[in-house]
Amino acid sequence: MMALHPDRLFPIEADARGIARRLFSAVESLPIVSPHGHTDPLWYANDEAFPDPARLFVKPDHYIFRMLYSQGVKLEELGVPRRDGGSVEIDGRKIWRLFAKHWYLFRGTPSRLWFEHALETVFGIEERLSEKNADAIYDRIAERLTEPSMRPRALYKQFGIEVISTTDAATDDLAAHDAILKSGWSGRVVPAYRPDAVVDASRADFGANVEQFVALAGTKLEYQGYLEAHRVRRAYFKARGATSTDHGHPNARTANLSASEASALFERVLKDPSAEDADLFRAQMLTEMARMSVEDGLVMQIHPGSFRNHNPALFDWFGTDKGADIPRATNYVEELKPLLDAFGNDPRLTLILFTLDETSYSRELAPLAGHYPALRLGPAWWFHDSPEGMRRFRELTTETAGFYNTVGFNDDTRAYLSIPARHDMARRVDCAFLARLVADYRMDEDEAHEIAHDLAYRLAKEAYKF
Amino acid sequence: MMALHPDRLFPIEADARGIARRLFSAVESLPIVSPHGHTDPLWYANDEAFPDPARLFVKPDHYIFRMLYSQGVKLEELGVPRRDGGSVEIDGRKIWRLFAKHWYLFRGTPSRLWFEHALETVFGIEERLSEKNADAIYDRIAERLTEPSMRPRALYKQFGIEVISTTDAATDDLAAHDAILKSGWSGRVVPAYRPDAVVDASRADFGANVEQFVALAGTKLEYQGYLEAHRVRRAYFKARGATSTDHGHPNARTANLSASEASALFERVLKDPSAEDADLFRAQMLTEMARMSVEDGLVMQIHPGSFRNHNPALFDWFGTDKGADIPRATNYVEELKPLLDAFGNDPRLTLILFTLDETSYSRELAPLAGHYPALRLGPAWWFHDSPEGMRRFRELTTETAGFYNTVGFNDDTRAYLSIPARHDMARRVDCAFLARLVADYRMDEDEAHEIAHDLAYRLAKEAYKF
Amino acid sequence: MMALHPDRLFPIEADARGIARRLFSAVESLPIVSPHGHTDPLWYANDEAFPDPARLFVKPDHYIFRMLYSQGVKLEELGVPRRDGGSVEIDGRKIWRLFAKHWYLFRGTPSRLWFEHALETVFGIEERLSEKNADAIYDRIAERLTEPSMRPRALYKQFGIEVISTTDAATDDLAAHDAILKSGWSGRVVPAYRPDAVVDASRADFGANVEQFVALAGTKLEYQGYLEAHRVRRAYFKARGATSTDHGHPNARTANLSASEASALFERVLKDPSAEDADLFRAQMLTEMARMSVEDGLVMQIHPGSFRNHNPALFDWFGTDKGADIPRATNYVEELKPLLDAFGNDPRLTLILFTLDETSYSRELAPLAGHYPALRLGPAWWFHDSPEGMRRFRELTTETAGFYNTVGFNDDTRAYLSIPARHDMARRVDCAFLARLVADYRMDEDEAHEIAHDLAYRLAKEAYKF
Repeated sequence: MMALHPDRLFPIEADARGIARRLFSAVESLPIVSPHGHTDPLWYANDEAFPDPARLFVKPDHYIFRMLYSQGVKLEELGVPRRDGGSVEIDGRKIWRLFAKHWYLFRGTPSRLWFEHALETVFGIEERLSEKNADAIYDRIAERLTEPSMRPRALYKQFGIEVISTTDAATDDLAAHDAILKSGWSGRVVPAYRPDAVVDASRADFGANVEQFVALAGTKLEYQGYLEAHRVRRAYFKARGATSTDHGHPNARTANLSASEASALFERVLKDPSAEDADLFRAQMLTEMARMSVEDGLVMQIHPGSFRNHNPALFDWFGTDKGADIPRATNYVEELKPLLDAFGNDPRLTLILFTLDETSYSRELAPLAGHYPALRLGPAWWFHDSPEGMRRFRELTTETAGFYNTVGFNDDTRAYLSIPARHDMARRVDCAFLARLVADYRMDEDEAHEIAHDLAYRLAKEAYKF
Repeated sequence: MMALHPDRLFPIEADARGIARRLFSAVESLPIVSPHGHTDPLWYANDEAFPDPARLFVKPDHYIFRMLYSQGVKLEELGVPRRDGGSVEIDGRKIWRLFAKHWYLFRGTPSRLWFEHALETVFGIEERLSEKNADAIYDRIAERLTEPSMRPRALYKQFGIEVISTTDAATDDLAAHDAILKSGWSGRVVPAYRPDAVVDASRADFGANVEQFVALAGTKLEYQGYLEAHRVRRAYFKARGATSTDHGHPNARTANLSASEASALFERVLKDPSAEDADLFRAQMLTEMARMSVEDGLVMQIHPGSFRNHNPALFDWFGTDKGADIPRATNYVEELKPLLDAFGNDPRLTLILFTLDETSYSRELAPLAGHYPALRLGPAWWFHDSPEGMRRFRELTTETAGFYNTVGFNDDTRAYLSIPARHDMARRVDCAFLARLVADYRMDEDEAHEIAHDLAYRLAKEAYKF
Repeated sequence: MMALHPDRLFPIEADARGIARRLFSAVESLPIVSPHGHTDPLWYANDEAFPDPARLFVKPDHYIFRMLYSQGVKLEELGVPRRDGGSVEIDGRKIWRLFAKHWYLFRGTPSRLWFEHALETVFGIEERLSEKNADAIYDRIAERLTEPSMRPRALYKQFGIEVISTTDAATDDLAAHDAILKSGWSGRVVPAYRPDAVVDASRADFGANVEQFVALAGTKLEYQGYLEAHRVRRAYFKARGATSTDHGHPNARTANLSASEASALFERVLKDPSAEDADLFRAQMLTEMARMSVEDGLVMQIHPGSFRNHNPALFDWFGTDKGADIPRATNYVEELKPLLDAFGNDPRLTLILFTLDETSYSRELAPLAGHYPALRLGPAWWFHDSPEGMRRFRELTTETAGFYNTVGFNDDTRAYLSIPARHDMARRVDCAFLARLVADYRMDEDEAHEIAHDLAYRLAKEAYKF
């Protein structure tokens, strides 16, 4: 591995590169606002050392093992637990060697850049990982992981995080968040309300989830009680610092049924819902969530368009989140209309849209966000959270929606060490984009400086009401 | 605002920039051929002074107020008239100040570039608009607007316009065009036949429009009479200089029904048409329009794929064209087939296709235009009439359809002062594209010069038969 | 025409261009592995001189005559044979002059680059073709074509081909391939098994094809006999060197019916199949082909998404492959699922996917190939086999699928002289892509060298099991 080059991801041409350097140097050290992600609140609550390098870098990162799996590496060999409890590799060093042997597969991917950023900035390792140096690098990381400076709270400070949001089930008691608050630690870790498990009636556990949900809220198991349970739980989250809700749906469909239709639908989905009923119920609930956001001020996020668990055999063996979630075409224009008809013009709502379907950027999302006061565009997401993906996001949305209908960056990660790497990448790519606009005289450099600051810091903080 | 830089929108790399400069300098001053747009023919007929700066730049430009609206500015504050006649801001200076305060929202958008081009080239103002200088700039523009050199005919000459087409309803008497012709003025302003209001049976006023239409043509209110009315009105337009028709449909669907089926359909849509009947009738009429174009030689344009008036609350208050028209996915391959089966091989037809769905460029439109003799591709349209949008258009169509199945530039504007700005942008972006092909040795510079001239001038003139 | 510039298609910026030069110089002369194409095996078997320049360059190349046709040139004038045997131009020189007169239409297209590469490297002609020099160039080519060095086998050697695959009907006796094998010639020309004509029940000749097919294989005309015939014929192809099968379907639909359902479907499609039955049968057969590939190891290729013979009038006069095949939107996520559910995790299967719908690159194909062990991505195909198309392929797939889930280059050509031109273009574009990743520090140059070699040579050889 080369050492991290200070000009990485900047334009190649010298003048534009110089502009990018100047823009980046002014935003490089801004605090990290992380309004959407999947870090474990227990890390901050317990502040325990991370385990070995394999458990830190390989096992929890579906970006990593999906690529290895695609090239014939078995998930058992990577220590991914089997649902039947069958044996899998537990020797961190063996897993690490296997990873190192296949490291070349990540050439040209963002995982490569995130990993090398963490290796160098957190562990001071500037070599490129390979089969040859796998053991030596493993040992250096393992040794450092025992140091107090490598604990989650110390890293939070080292990373310059100002606030970070986790993502939490609607039925979560948020005990870890309470523990953080009571501990007196100065870090700010807030939950986000993610009710998918009590909204998606296609799940096998939906009925049980809803029963637990209304019991927890102390409301009745009928539609109005179910809605009230959402209000109760949202308030519970809000009291613990939540500023947002998040909704991961297979599509962007919304509905705005009458109270009696919705109530009848709720009764049906509690029994044996048809696929259409389950879809319609999810659609109806997005509109209900928007209605509640208008009331309680929680920022609403929709992450649609993933075909989850596309590989049933793999799902049977290993469960969810194993790299087998595949994007599909998503229609925002027709599908969001019922919700927008109801609340699209309401200044009290902030609805942040994400997509896995890049064709929607210029065709649908930018025109929608460039018109409706309630709408904002989330950053390039998941597979598209990458240098080329972020560049396409800006190129395809800016001319229609501008910069100010976007909300800065989300790192969206489960991999703690990738947080500064991802924000670094986003800031670089945005500065590179701006530098090109300055270099071909579409914008003045003083404006680009202001926008770079907005994209790196202010817009996320304001859009998510931190 | 920086002064307009002579190298704006050119490639950043020095060699390619030098090529672009040479290409552009040879086409920069070519006359403007504007074959498709929405300027008001009364401007040219009456040649009156434009009103205040707000009414010139803000109120008529849906690109401007859609962005302001998306960030919470109310349309009433911008002076947009309400359908119920309710009070809206009428003080041009107040509107202008509000606009200036939000001017930063347009960073990175083509509106920014068009506005600054007009400000500098028409009014000699080189400052960047802001809250601070809003009043001073307002005054300077307002003062200039009283000068004779700022009247429509003088600007027509100053802009170097050779010919401009307006867009006119099929029932328009074209009195303004007649007045222009009778006035002896040397400018060439021609109408275009836009029959949407007598073709789209989903409109509330369709029946009344058709009655007026056949009455005007002196034909009978049955299908053959209705078709004959089109022939009569097309001839009326052609006699006043029209060379083209234009069709703005929600999709690209065409049909080729038998005479009896079509006649029965016409009877149904005159009563209470189903959505499917209205759609089928629009589809049938595109094929009828092609048939008539084969006869009378009018060039046919299809602008499909806009979901008009997506925001019903806004539509109720303010009506059409308020920035709430949203693109959607458009299928050309199946939907155009009935028309192409009938006339796609006919050398007498020129059918120019536009799209709001950029995915169709390389997948459908370039392959279709690179095969059918009757087809040509219109330039990047509406949201995509922008530096990045025009670049994508060339990158995604040229390798399959070449340059000669495209038709040069359309400014498509309602904002008179943006006409030279838009042609300037298109010429720059095309020269930049060509310069890159020369710089990496895909083309010789002498060829690029010829193409730059074709794209800036000849192709539009020939395709639209001026 | 300029002489071929050694830096053509490289990045414009000097540092990146220097990197590209170094990368390319190391792969420029690697042998050509051509695992998918449409050259005629009789060329290698008979080793006869090519006829005149028009028959070499114009008549067989649908890229050429589709563009000419789109601009009003009649196919008869280009010597394209009519199905009714009607007279067409037979004078090669006249055809050539017509081609030369319209040569400017190909500016900006890959055909231009392929043609000029052949002209210069095979015939030593460095002038740009035009009406003026058409005769002189015709004469120079015609003269050279009589030389022994211009025969197919000599060119095979001159082009540096290591192995080339043809594409052959399932009922082909492969006599030409047998002749090549028996001739003792050192070239390696292998067939590929393309069973579309016995799989696509929408074809008028389907029933007759199937009868011939089972007769040839000596099996019964019922479903199990039909499947067995595939096994017999695949083995026949494999014995003659085939390593792959190829499937050109209108969509990517797959099915995995029970044996009894499939058998009943087979009976139905042999009679008068509905469009749905024909589609379902094609879908079922893709899964059967995958099952057989698991058994016999033939690499499977799916080329979906072309609306064949979109222009019925042209089809009536001239038949298939006349430039009227138009891409359409293709859904891989839902449509491939039945096949992937059955064999997606099977390491014995290699399934190479192609697309004409570039929207699927980042949304569907890269995520699928970056997960399923059986999947690989074929290179940019057909209309997208071009500098911009290849660049988009890498930009849109690499970050998610990496380089190692792709399979190098396919020239896919019917035009023999374009083979080295196409491999040259692909190597240049890939080196340019890699050079940019090195120049902005996403990758080290030593890695880029290794990848450039893999993309130019190793991946094709390994994926196709040569």
